[in-house]
Amino acid sequence: MMRFLKRFGQGELRLNRTEAFSDGVFAIVVTLLVLELKVPILHDRASVSELNHRLVDLVPKFLSWLISFVIVCKFWLNHHHLLTFARHATYGMVWLNSIFLMGQAFIPFPTALMGEFPTNPLAVSLFGAVMAVNTLLFIALQSYIIGNLLKPELVSAVVPHLTRKSFVGVVCYLLGAAATLFNVHVAFVLYALTPLFFITPPQSRRIVE
Amino acid sequence: MMRFLKRFGQGELRLNRTEAFSDGVFAIVVTLLVLELKVPILHDRASVSELNHRLVDLVPKFLSWLISFVIVCKFWLNHHHLLTFARHATYGMVWLNSIFLMGQAFIPFPTALMGEFPTNPLAVSLFGAVMAVNTLLFIALQSYIIGNLLKPELVSAVVPHLTRKSFVGVVCYLLGAAATLFNVHVAFVLYALTPLFFITPPQSRRIVE
Amino acid sequence: MMRFLKRFGQGELRLNRTEAFSDGVFAIVVTLLVLELKVPILHDRASVSELNHRLVDLVPKFLSWLISFVIVCKFWLNHHHLLTFARHATYGMVWLNSIFLMGQAFIPFPTALMGEFPTNPLAVSLFGAVMAVNTLLFIALQSYIIGNLLKPELVSAVVPHLTRKSFVGVVCYLLGAAATLFNVHVAFVLYALTPLFFITPPQSRRIVE
Amino acid sequence: MMRFLKRFGQGELRLNRTEAFSDGVFAIVVTLLVLELKVPILHDRASVSELNHRLVDLVPKFLSWLISFVIVCKFWLNHHHLLTFARHATYGMVWLNSIFLMGQAFIPFPTALMGEFPTNPLAVSLFGAVMAVNTLLFIALQSYIIGNLLKPELVSAVVPHLTRKSFVGVVCYLLGAAATLFNVHVAFVLYALTPLFFITPPQSRRIVE
Repeated sequence: MMRFLKRFGQGELRLNRTEAFSDGVFAIVVTLLVLELKVPILHDRASVSELNHRLVDLVPKFLSWLISFVIVCKFWLNHHHLLTFARHATYGMVWLNSIFLMGQAFIPFPTALMGEFPTNPLAVSLFGAVMAVNTLLFIALQSYIIGNLLKPELVSAVVPHLTRKSFVGVVCYLLGAAATLFNVHVAFVLYALTPLFFITPPQSRRIVE
Repeated sequence: MMRFLKRFGQGELRLNRTEAFSDGVFAIVVTLLVLELKVPILHDRASVSELNHRLVDLVPKFLSWLISFVIVCKFWLNHHHLLTFARHATYGMVWLNSIFLMGQAFIPFPTALMGEFPTNPLAVSLFGAVMAVNTLLFIALQSYIIGNLLKPELVSAVVPHLTRKSFVGVVCYLLGAAATLFNVHVAFVLYALTPLFFITPPQSRRIVE
Repeated sequence: MMRFLKRFGQGELRLNRTEAFSDGVFAIVVTLLVLELKVPILHDRASVSELNHRLVDLVPKFLSWLISFVIVCKFWLNHHHLLTFARHATYGMVWLNSIFLMGQAFIPFPTALMGEFPTNPLAVSLFGAVMAVNTLLFIALQSYIIGNLLKPELVSAVVPHLTRKSFVGVVCYLLGAAATLFNVHVAFVLYALTPLFFITPPQSRRIVE
Repeated sequence: MMRFLKRFGQGELRLNRTEAFSDGVFAIVVTLLVLELKVPILHDRASVSELNHRLVDLVPKFLSWLISFVIVCKFWLNHHHLLTFARHATYGMVWLNSIFLMGQAFIPFPTALMGEFPTNPLAVSLFGAVMAVNTLLFIALQSYIIGNLLKPELVSAVVPHLTRKSFVGVVCYLLGAAATLFNVHVAFVLYALTPLFFITPPQSRRIVE
């Protein structure tokens, strides 16, 4: 068993292909999101007022798209930052990365659900739950890299508060999910604000001071 | 607050991942556009004349696809050119880039709308408005890079007319959007001609002279 | 004829573009899979219990998505590992790679089929058959690279058991496909377990010992 | 005017971003093709025989997918080979490349059309016409690179027969398109055979001898 687990720490896989695969997934996820904004059906195809009404109906979908886009870009940026910490890739890291990307690739579904049913508490809270799970998957990848693959020159710089900050995201998304029991609009606001805490990646002390 | 803003200027992020993510988004946007060209429904599946009529009906969608494709390629080329100016990436630049890519990723929606309702002034003007916003987002990214990240050897070469030229694009797209009040065909022509001003990227004096 | 075949062994194509193309295909395949998770239709759009029922109906699609995602990630990881063995790319290798990618690009179809008809033995066995064929295509690529393009320093390290291990995958997927004659759930379990044999890439002796 | 045209020959754009963008488009095109293979609708969802019949109905779509996949891979391989000839990228080359990619990105549409209406001569001949145009676009890019950007060390090696061979493809696709006037099956066979002439990229004399 131990010998099996040890295998995951082996292998000097190339970081650049892991990054290329990840960038591909991130890029497709953010671009697929727009497919949910479907062209409406009009009775009078040339009517400005009818199209206007149908576009207003799309506002919740547009908001869901916007929030998701910012969140995925945030994940991409933090992922980019995190991978600069790693000496190289191992099987364990590549698998944690794959599971993290699985979470990212799932995002279009709860985004579409929230956009379609913006007044349905289950649809809106599912979005928050999925984002919380995604943040946990990112924390797992982050802990593995910091624990096993940290570049020697960074050892003194990276401190525990880095992981602690990530948990703030988990809590915020879950608060948003819970808020749907009372009011779905509060959830939308919380989902939109949470990524703003992370628009600069978790700072190592070295950079903050 | 100042300390917070300063953070955006920090970080030596790698330009190559920013480029990889951007190239992914550009590539997916141009390729997704074709999905709007849907296979028509035929009563007599083997009828040449019926298929011919249905294909003629698709001409506005085909034109929208063509115009969008050229515009996105133009943005890609200018983005490619712009990023060669930058010394490295910072958080501020990466976020401006992400917001710019958000605008690009949105393009399939107004393209589909204009292709579906080519006689609807709102649909056609929305296309121009989105392209104007995209050009503004590009100008924001361009100004940030020139103001903060310009390679020292380029400082003397890049002059104000570079940004001025980009504003020509904004004006042209808005003129197209306004033209829909009188005639939607004029808008189509303006949208098709505008990228031709930019098929060579904004020239620095050094290259022009 | 021989002269024609010899051509495939010629050419020093660059591995990096082969990898970039492959990574693109892998990334799109895993991300497209989620498009099968379609937003359900609700009579009462704000009803939590109705949405809950519709989401439970999606469980087979979700499981198919999960299994496919893990399998494609496994193929990506093994492909990544395999290409580190090659000195350079030749036309023969690039074509075997393209045919392998064709198999990967086909995966969304049997995944969608199994997700839609999880109780239909044909749908479930087709999934296993496609995965078996994909594994065979990977074995073909692997044999070609080991036989023709192996880096000199790896010649002593790579041993026959490497290919033998891959055949375990073929057998497992075919067993799953055959199991549908008796019970489709057994097939699901076999499909989910098979990639776990391969979560670390085929080991060369040098690494194992 | 001359001064304007001269601009296209200027600029030392980086080949690697042109390649990354192109690889992205190629990868998405081949992967999107599978989306045409839609899950059929079954009255009895667990019926093996009904699903079997519906899958047999999909055979023309599957064949279209297969032919398109091989053709796009062939274009990718020749594009890959061609770009190794170039010293660097210029605006002219990047635009010819973009127009070539526009042709590639269009391929999913005639593929879907031929798959949906395999007995409709117009649908089948359109496929051939689009492939002929794509080959012409490739020839344009090839001529530009050989005429303007050829690496000095390759000048003596690349000879006229290279472009001549590409025209064979144009003729074959057009023959296929014309064959639909008599028999659509002949067209399918011609489309499937044509890429086989090009599975090894156009050889320069140096390599052939």
